[in-house]
Amino acid sequence: MNIFNINQNILYGIGIMTGTSCDAIDISLVKFEYFDDLKLSLIKFKSKSFPLNYAKKVKEIIENKISIQEISQFNFYYSYLIADSVKEFIESEQINYFDIDFIAIHGQTLWHNPTPSNFMGKKISSTYQSVNLSAIAKILKKPIIGDFRSGDIALGGQGAPLVPIFDELFFQDESKDTICLNLGGIANITVVPNKKSKKEVIAFDIGPANTLIDLVASQYFDKNYDEDGDLAKQGKLDQSLLKIMLDDEYFILPPPKSTGREKFNIKFIDNSLQKLNYRVKPIDLLRTLTELTAITIANSINKLELEIPRLIISGGGRNNKFLIELLSENLNKVEIKNIEDFGIISESKESVAFAYLGWLFLMQRNGNLPSVTGAIQKTILGTLAI
Amino acid sequence: MNIFNINQNILYGIGIMTGTSCDAIDISLVKFEYFDDLKLSLIKFKSKSFPLNYAKKVKEIIENKISIQEISQFNFYYSYLIADSVKEFIESEQINYFDIDFIAIHGQTLWHNPTPSNFMGKKISSTYQSVNLSAIAKILKKPIIGDFRSGDIALGGQGAPLVPIFDELFFQDESKDTICLNLGGIANITVVPNKKSKKEVIAFDIGPANTLIDLVASQYFDKNYDEDGDLAKQGKLDQSLLKIMLDDEYFILPPPKSTGREKFNIKFIDNSLQKLNYRVKPIDLLRTLTELTAITIANSINKLELEIPRLIISGGGRNNKFLIELLSENLNKVEIKNIEDFGIISESKESVAFAYLGWLFLMQRNGNLPSVTGAIQKTILGTLAI
Repeated sequence: MNIFNINQNILYGIGIMTGTSCDAIDISLVKFEYFDDLKLSLIKFKSKSFPLNYAKKVKEIIENKISIQEISQFNFYYSYLIADSVKEFIESEQINYFDIDFIAIHGQTLWHNPTPSNFMGKKISSTYQSVNLSAIAKILKKPIIGDFRSGDIALGGQGAPLVPIFDELFFQDESKDTICLNLGGIANITVVPNKKSKKEVIAFDIGPANTLIDLVASQYFDKNYDEDGDLAKQGKLDQSLLKIMLDDEYFILPPPKSTGREKFNIKFIDNSLQKLNYRVKPIDLLRTLTELTAITIANSINKLELEIPRLIISGGGRNNKFLIELLSENLNKVEIKNIEDFGIISESKESVAFAYLGWLFLMQRNGNLPSVTGAIQKTILGTLAI
Repeated sequence: MNIFNINQNILYGIGIMTGTSCDAIDISLVKFEYFDDLKLSLIKFKSKSFPLNYAKKVKEIIENKISIQEISQFNFYYSYLIADSVKEFIESEQINYFDIDFIAIHGQTLWHNPTPSNFMGKKISSTYQSVNLSAIAKILKKPIIGDFRSGDIALGGQGAPLVPIFDELFFQDESKDTICLNLGGIANITVVPNKKSKKEVIAFDIGPANTLIDLVASQYFDKNYDEDGDLAKQGKLDQSLLKIMLDDEYFILPPPKSTGREKFNIKFIDNSLQKLNYRVKPIDLLRTLTELTAITIANSINKLELEIPRLIISGGGRNNKFLIELLSENLNKVEIKNIEDFGIISESKESVAFAYLGWLFLMQRNGNLPSVTGAIQKTILGTLAI
């Protein structure tokens, strides 16, 4: 049975991303023009803070045992929060409500573990993005698409990363290979082969980007982050400490691989420091961690053995000038591009990618890349409420 | 934007109901023929037991604090269980897989409270039917529709009952008013005015049907239920106890109203017995509870002041001959009809109703009755995974 019938060549979709760090609700308005090829353009973007008690509640749900009532109430609470944010966005950006064709929502991740574990005698892996799509649809009176990760998980995939299909659409070049490097808490890359290549897109987490640097900046220098990398620049590289950290098994694992703050956290730093028989000054630690980030990223990219690829850097870490300087020193030849040259703001990238996943759903096209997620097949991702 | 385009007049849908009692997975295959009017027919029905540990796990989730991991895993576990049950159903009933157009699923209710309560500074009401629609869609490769209650809740309704719209479709008569009485744990009715009437459908819970009788049968007579009402028939009606129970405020409340085992349970019986200064024999208690059920139902129906309505009884309680006898004695004139005369099996009714709700979603028609749920408006109910 053919359920869907969308005969509009031009669609406007809103994409909404709320990450595990609970720092902001990112909202993008994206225009999709589909004639021979799809042309996607970012029209408006806004990042909105969560209410003050939000991050605490998410942490409470993730870390403690909780009643099903709290989960159920949180699903609806989150949905109304998103609906309100969309209304505010439309008003402040002076968007015509009638122009909006659909809204795609990532949801608040409360659980994500693609590794099967025993549950009531069965091997089950699952993911949980809190949201009630139907509740949002009733408030906003627009088609709402969400739950993009579950379908891939059900087909044996990791349910992540989902942004690479957007990287492929948006950054693929006729003749040059492209590397999309995102410097968030964790550094991850998508490698998009050029259009003539027969290689598939690959994507993986490299290791820490800002997470360890931010931790030390906050613990010893009372700063949220090391602005421009000015602190690290004053420190001295500790070769022994660097070697200990580089020996971590994660850096040796071949891709595809993924990691997070569960691994690269204060314990990782403490355990590495404990292997030395002397103390390391905080400023030298900061320098060494910045080198670790630059070197592990450079190594991962160099190992790909691409012929002068284009490198597009996004994420907060690209503002760390010293980190970018060290990275450039260690990289084989690449052509560095600004993400803004492609018409999107670095901070908007994930929300734009989810708007694209919403469009793919409505067009009944596959949204996952098995070469990236490990799923047994390509599939349509998402669930729709009207 | 017009998303849906279904141009088939004949559709086959599977409806799946799993209730809070966790006794069975009810699966119906329903044929929808839509030319001038909709003709709905039950093709196949099967009821399948849950695994032995299922009810215990649901109880554990509902009654205790639990990790988000358990909720997430349960969503996927339930979905695979349903997918397996559908596969079994299709095989054992020799259904052609290609004939099936869609599957509609109620989900496992883990929370349902339409009364708003404070949550992070907002008044929130919510409902939680466990299931991951996308996971089922990937396994069964059919459109899956679920989460039928949330949309009505978001519009200020009770999110229940949802079956009355099916009662209206299926049982409405040209000239006679129809009462659909369901004798489950709780007795509920839908009143469907005749086609010429300008009245709206109403529906409400009357009070206990089998729940109290079953409790006493199990506690004192080691039986799951009082077969044919044979035990109650041997007992003597205790008028004082009956009066105490009839004085309960729930029976006096005007409809719409809803209740459950949270109210009509062993405590209700004990509290009533404590108001007497003598002991009541178990057999007399059983007789009195059977009278209570018959009288509260008869009173509710008589109060409607309908002119010889048709009465269609469904649910396990209709097998209690003595209860039906007492009910008939107390009722004003009605015309009693068998649900089977309409071509459906009593046990299949709810699963057929959810198949109909799935069809309504695909046709983009409203699924709630505000006169029944209290929602501020009619709305399309459901969420779709492909």
